[in-house]
Amino acid sequence: MSIRVGIVGISGFGGGEAMRLVAAHPEFELVYAAGEGSAGSRLVDRFPGVPAKLAELVIEKWDPATLPKLDVLFASLPTGTSAEALSRVPADVKIVDIGGDHRYAEGWAYGLADVWPDRIEGRTRVANPGCFPAATLTALAPLLASGLIEPGGIVVDAKTGISGAGRGGGGGGGGFGYAESNENLVPYGLLKHVHMPEMTTTIERLSGGSAAGLVLTPHLVPMTRGVLATIYCRGRATTGECLDAARRFYAGRAFVRVTDRPPQTKWAAGSNLAFVSYAADPERNLVIAMGVIDNLGKGAAGQAVQNANLICGLPETAGLDGAPVWP
Amino acid sequence: MSIRVGIVGISGFGGGEAMRLVAAHPEFELVYAAGEGSAGSRLVDRFPGVPAKLAELVIEKWDPATLPKLDVLFASLPTGTSAEALSRVPADVKIVDIGGDHRYAEGWAYGLADVWPDRIEGRTRVANPGCFPAATLTALAPLLASGLIEPGGIVVDAKTGISGAGRGGGGGGGGFGYAESNENLVPYGLLKHVHMPEMTTTIERLSGGSAAGLVLTPHLVPMTRGVLATIYCRGRATTGECLDAARRFYAGRAFVRVTDRPPQTKWAAGSNLAFVSYAADPERNLVIAMGVIDNLGKGAAGQAVQNANLICGLPETAGLDGAPVWP
Amino acid sequence: MSIRVGIVGISGFGGGEAMRLVAAHPEFELVYAAGEGSAGSRLVDRFPGVPAKLAELVIEKWDPATLPKLDVLFASLPTGTSAEALSRVPADVKIVDIGGDHRYAEGWAYGLADVWPDRIEGRTRVANPGCFPAATLTALAPLLASGLIEPGGIVVDAKTGISGAGRGGGGGGGGFGYAESNENLVPYGLLKHVHMPEMTTTIERLSGGSAAGLVLTPHLVPMTRGVLATIYCRGRATTGECLDAARRFYAGRAFVRVTDRPPQTKWAAGSNLAFVSYAADPERNLVIAMGVIDNLGKGAAGQAVQNANLICGLPETAGLDGAPVWP
Amino acid sequence: MSIRVGIVGISGFGGGEAMRLVAAHPEFELVYAAGEGSAGSRLVDRFPGVPAKLAELVIEKWDPATLPKLDVLFASLPTGTSAEALSRVPADVKIVDIGGDHRYAEGWAYGLADVWPDRIEGRTRVANPGCFPAATLTALAPLLASGLIEPGGIVVDAKTGISGAGRGGGGGGGGFGYAESNENLVPYGLLKHVHMPEMTTTIERLSGGSAAGLVLTPHLVPMTRGVLATIYCRGRATTGECLDAARRFYAGRAFVRVTDRPPQTKWAAGSNLAFVSYAADPERNLVIAMGVIDNLGKGAAGQAVQNANLICGLPETAGLDGAPVWP
Repeated sequence: MSIRVGIVGISGFGGGEAMRLVAAHPEFELVYAAGEGSAGSRLVDRFPGVPAKLAELVIEKWDPATLPKLDVLFASLPTGTSAEALSRVPADVKIVDIGGDHRYAEGWAYGLADVWPDRIEGRTRVANPGCFPAATLTALAPLLASGLIEPGGIVVDAKTGISGAGRGGGGGGGGFGYAESNENLVPYGLLKHVHMPEMTTTIERLSGGSAAGLVLTPHLVPMTRGVLATIYCRGRATTGECLDAARRFYAGRAFVRVTDRPPQTKWAAGSNLAFVSYAADPERNLVIAMGVIDNLGKGAAGQAVQNANLICGLPETAGLDGAPVWP
Repeated sequence: MSIRVGIVGISGFGGGEAMRLVAAHPEFELVYAAGEGSAGSRLVDRFPGVPAKLAELVIEKWDPATLPKLDVLFASLPTGTSAEALSRVPADVKIVDIGGDHRYAEGWAYGLADVWPDRIEGRTRVANPGCFPAATLTALAPLLASGLIEPGGIVVDAKTGISGAGRGGGGGGGGFGYAESNENLVPYGLLKHVHMPEMTTTIERLSGGSAAGLVLTPHLVPMTRGVLATIYCRGRATTGECLDAARRFYAGRAFVRVTDRPPQTKWAAGSNLAFVSYAADPERNLVIAMGVIDNLGKGAAGQAVQNANLICGLPETAGLDGAPVWP
Repeated sequence: MSIRVGIVGISGFGGGEAMRLVAAHPEFELVYAAGEGSAGSRLVDRFPGVPAKLAELVIEKWDPATLPKLDVLFASLPTGTSAEALSRVPADVKIVDIGGDHRYAEGWAYGLADVWPDRIEGRTRVANPGCFPAATLTALAPLLASGLIEPGGIVVDAKTGISGAGRGGGGGGGGFGYAESNENLVPYGLLKHVHMPEMTTTIERLSGGSAAGLVLTPHLVPMTRGVLATIYCRGRATTGECLDAARRFYAGRAFVRVTDRPPQTKWAAGSNLAFVSYAADPERNLVIAMGVIDNLGKGAAGQAVQNANLICGLPETAGLDGAPVWP
Repeated sequence: MSIRVGIVGISGFGGGEAMRLVAAHPEFELVYAAGEGSAGSRLVDRFPGVPAKLAELVIEKWDPATLPKLDVLFASLPTGTSAEALSRVPADVKIVDIGGDHRYAEGWAYGLADVWPDRIEGRTRVANPGCFPAATLTALAPLLASGLIEPGGIVVDAKTGISGAGRGGGGGGGGFGYAESNENLVPYGLLKHVHMPEMTTTIERLSGGSAAGLVLTPHLVPMTRGVLATIYCRGRATTGECLDAARRFYAGRAFVRVTDRPPQTKWAAGSNLAFVSYAADPERNLVIAMGVIDNLGKGAAGQAVQNANLICGLPETAGLDGAPVWP
C-alpha cells in the first residue's frame, strides 16, 4: 500500500462506498476522510464494520487548506459545491470527482472508463459520469460507434434504487423516508434531469451526429441499489447485430458483460460491473438497449476507483474484482 | 345483500382481492368460492382475516356443472384455461373474466370501465383488461380521442409489482422467491408481451388510426402491488392541453384522477383508482403520458367489481369507495 | 352522516389512517383537519387518493380556540405535546387521543377496547393504548385474567414496521431513510421504552398481581406496517388451555382472532384486527403468547375509531369491518 | 492459488455465497462445483456476475465417485442428505459441512470458529454451526465462560432474513414468494427448532452447567440477509461487566465486534463479521445479549471459509477481510 488516498464526502452513500472499496484495495491506503455530517467521529462510529486498520481514523471537517499529503482524492460532494472546493486542492493531488460539477468541464477528463480508458490514463482530473449516464452510455456506445442506431430521438426510461437519490434529500418532508418510499414507484425530473447535458455530449461524440430529441425519465424504485436504463432507439439492426457489436466493442474489457437475456439489477449488486443487452425489431425501426449497474458501484465509487487505477497506472481491475453479492 | 356472487380462482391474488371487495360490497353476497390450490379449505384457513360471516365458507373444486345458483361469477383463472371452462357456465349467470382469454372475444364486452361504461352496461359477459392495458389505456384515451397524439409508434415502458406476475409462477425455479426478487428490477417479455393485442385494438378504436409500431416493455419491480406505465408518444400538444383533455374526458367519472404531478404507485394502493398525468414538449414532438393503478385493484379485482356493478345496474362505485392505504 | 369529526395531526401516519377510516365510516363526517406540516394544503394535495367529497377540505393550523363545532376529535400528536393542547378543547367535544400523553391519566379512560369496552362506553375522554401495549395486552389479557400465567417476569420481544416510529423521526440524520432502513433490523429503547408504564399498570389490573420484572425490547423491522409481540411468560398451562381461555375471553368480540397457527403481521394489514396465539411447555414453566396487529390499525387509528364508536353509542364495528389487504 | 476447492450445493444460497468468497480468496482455486438444480449449466449462466476466470466452469451433478482431486470441499446440502453423501468422500479431502447433519457428530469438529479456533485447527472434518446458533453463541460465549449469566432458562428470540430459509422451501405453496413474504413478519418452529440441540450442547460446554429450559423462537423478517438474536438471560452482571467480558474474550480476534450500541443486521451485510452487545439490569436479574450476523456470512459461507482457513493452516482472515456492504 503505497498510494495515499483521501475521501471527501464520506458521510454520503457514494463516499461510504468509496471507503469500502479503498479499504479492500491492494495499493491504496486511506489516510484522510472528511465529511460534513460526521466530522469528529471515528470511521468505526459511522461504519461499524469498517476494517480494524481504519477504525480509529477521525473524520475531518473538509478544508482544502489542511489536507495531508495525498496522491489521490475522491470527492463525493453535492452537485454545485465541488467546483469551488476542489479548485483549491493542490495540483499534484490527483482528483476523481464523483459529483456532478466537472463533467465535460475544461481540464477534466470525462471518466466513462469502460468506453474511453485511453482518454483517462495520464490525466490528473477526472469527472465520474452520473449513474444514469453510466448505465445508458455503456449500453449505447457500441451501437452509436458502429452506426447501428440513430443518435437522435433516443428515449431513456431510467430506474434507480433510492440510494441514488442521495442521503441529504431524505427526511420528513415527503422525501425518502422508508414508509413513504417502500412499495412506491415514483417518476421524477421529467424533461429536465441534470444528467441530460453529459448524455447529449457523449452521444454526439460517440456518433458524430446530433442527439436532438433525447429524453430521460428517471424513476425511483423501492430498492436500495441498482440502476436499469431501458433505452428506445431508432435503427434497423437486428438483436444479433447489436449483441455482436457490443461483444466486439467490449472484447477484453473487464467490467462490461454482454448478455443474451435482459439484465437484472441484482446481477451487479455491490460490484463495478455493467450488464448490457439488446432487443431489436427492424420492421419497427426499433432497437431497445438495456444497461444495468449498481448506482454506487459503476454509477459512483466503483467507477471512481477504476478511474483512479487508470490515472495511477495500476491495473484497471485492482481492488474491483469481487463478484456481486447474491442474493 | 341480494346479488349472489361466486369467485373461481380464489387461491390466486386476483381472486383473493375479489373476495375482499365482495365481502365489503353493500349488494353482493359471496355464496361460492372455488380454487385449484385450496379446494376443501375454509376461507378462514386461506385468509385468516376474512370477515366472520364468510369464515366457514368451504372452497370448492371448480366444476361448472355443480355451480349453485349465482347472479354473478368472477373468474380469475390462468390465461389459456378460462375459455373452455367458462363456456359451460349457464347463460343466466353474468360473468366478469379477470383472466386473459376473452379480451375482444366475440360476445364479450371489453371492460375498460372508465372509458367505455356504456359498452358494458346491459351485457352479461365482460372481459377485464389486463393490468398493463388498464394503466396505459386510461392514460392514453383522452389524448387519442382528441387527436392530441398519434396512434402509431407509441412506446410503453411498464412497471409492475410482483403480485402482477401471479402466484403460480413463483417458486424455486428462478421465479418470484423473496430473496431473488427483493432488491431486483427485472425487464421481461420484450417485444412479445401477451397484452399487446388488446392494447393495439383499443388504441385503434379510440383513435381511428393505426397503432403500428406499438412497443410494450414490462418490468418487475420489488414491491407487492402497483403498476406505472410511462408512455412515450408523438404529438405537438402542450402539457396543459393534455391535462385539460383528460380533465374533460373524465369529468364526472369516479375513479380517474388527473394530476399535475407525476403519479406514484402508492397513491392507488388497495383502491380502484387510476391516476394519470402528462408532460409534453412540443418542440421534440413528444408527449409523455403516465398511468398509475393498483394491479389488483383497477388492474384486476377492482375493475371487475366496477364492471359487475355496471352489468348489474348498480351505482358504479358500490363497494369501491374506500380511500387507498397509505403509507 | 350526522357525527361531526375532526382530526388533529393529520400529517402523521396515525392521523392519515384516521382520515382514511373516518372517510369510509357510515356515521362520521370529517369537518376539520389540522396538521403542523401540511397546514394550508387541501386534503387532496396531501392524500391524492382521498375520496372526492373530502378533497377540497383545507388543513388548518391547530388551534383549540378556533375549532368548529365538533362531536368527536381524534388527536394524533407527538408524545409530550397533546396534554396541554387538548386541555383547551371544549368539554362537549369527545376526544380520542391516539398519542401517549393521557394513558392512565386522571379523567381519561384507557382505550383497550377489545378487553374493556364497558370502561369506555359513556366516557368523553379516551386514551388509545400504544401499539406495543395493544398487541401485547390483547394476547396476555385472557391468560392474566384466568391466572394461567404469572404477572411477574414477563418478557416482551416486540417488532414493529417502520411507520410505527412515526414520520417526524426520519430524515438524513441516521433516522428512517429508506436506504438505511431497508434490509436492516434494529433493536432500540432497551430497558427503558416509553410504553412500559401502561403495560405494567394493565398487567397488574388484569391479574391483581405484580408485574415486576417486565421487559420490553422493541425492534424496527424493514416493513411499513405491522406489530408482532412475542411474549415469554411463566406458567404451567398447556397450549390448549391458553387457546381455550382466549376463545372464551374473546367470544362474541369482533376484532380478536384466536388462531392455532403463529400469527403473521400481514394477516392484519390495513385492518383493525388482532390475532393472538399461544405455544406452551408446562415442563419448562413457559407460555409463549403472540399478538399481531397493524400498528396503524389496532395500534392507532383503528382502535381510535373503535373507541369513538363506543363513546358515541354506535356499533363497535361501524366503519371497521373491511377485510385486511392481502397480499 | 494452490488449494483446490470444490463446492457441492452451489444452486442454494449458501453454496452461491461460498462461490463468491472462494472466487475472491487469495489461496483457493475453485475447480469443482456441483448442484442439483443447476447441473449442466455454466457458472456464468447461474451467476451472471461471476469473475471471468470461473465463468465457463460447468456445474456437475453431485457424485462422490467422480470427484476431481480436491483439497477442500464445501458442502451446502439440505439437512438430512449430507451425512450419507459425504461419507463417500475420500478421507484426504478436507470437508467443511455448511449443512446440519454433522454438528457434534463423531469425528467432526464443531466449527464455532471465533470461540474455539483451536478445536478446529488440524482437523479434516468441520461442521459449521447453524445461523441461529452462530449469532446466539457468539454473543453468549463470553458471559457463559465467565459465569456472568446462568446457563439455564435462556430465551432466544431469533430473527432471520428470508434467505436463511433456503431456496428449496419457497414457491407457490404458501412458502417464500415475494408477494406473500414482503411486509410480513412470521414466527415459526416454536418450541422445536432443529437448531436447539447444538445450542444446548454448546451452552453446556461453555458453562459447565445445564442449559435446561432453553427456548428458541425463530422469526422470518422481510429482508434478504441478516440474523439478529435477542437473548434473555438470568444474571446479576451489569452492562459494563458484560461488555468488558466480551472485549476480553474476543481480544485479538478478527471477526467479532463488541459494541456499546445495540447492533443492526445491516452492519454485517455481506461480511463474516459478528456484532455483539449487551444491556443488563441486575435488579431484574436480567441480561439481554444481542448477536448480529449475516446468515450467509458468519451464518454459513463466511464461517465455512474461516473454518477452511483454519484447517488449511492459512491466516484466519484470508479472503474474508472485506468491509460490509452499506447501505
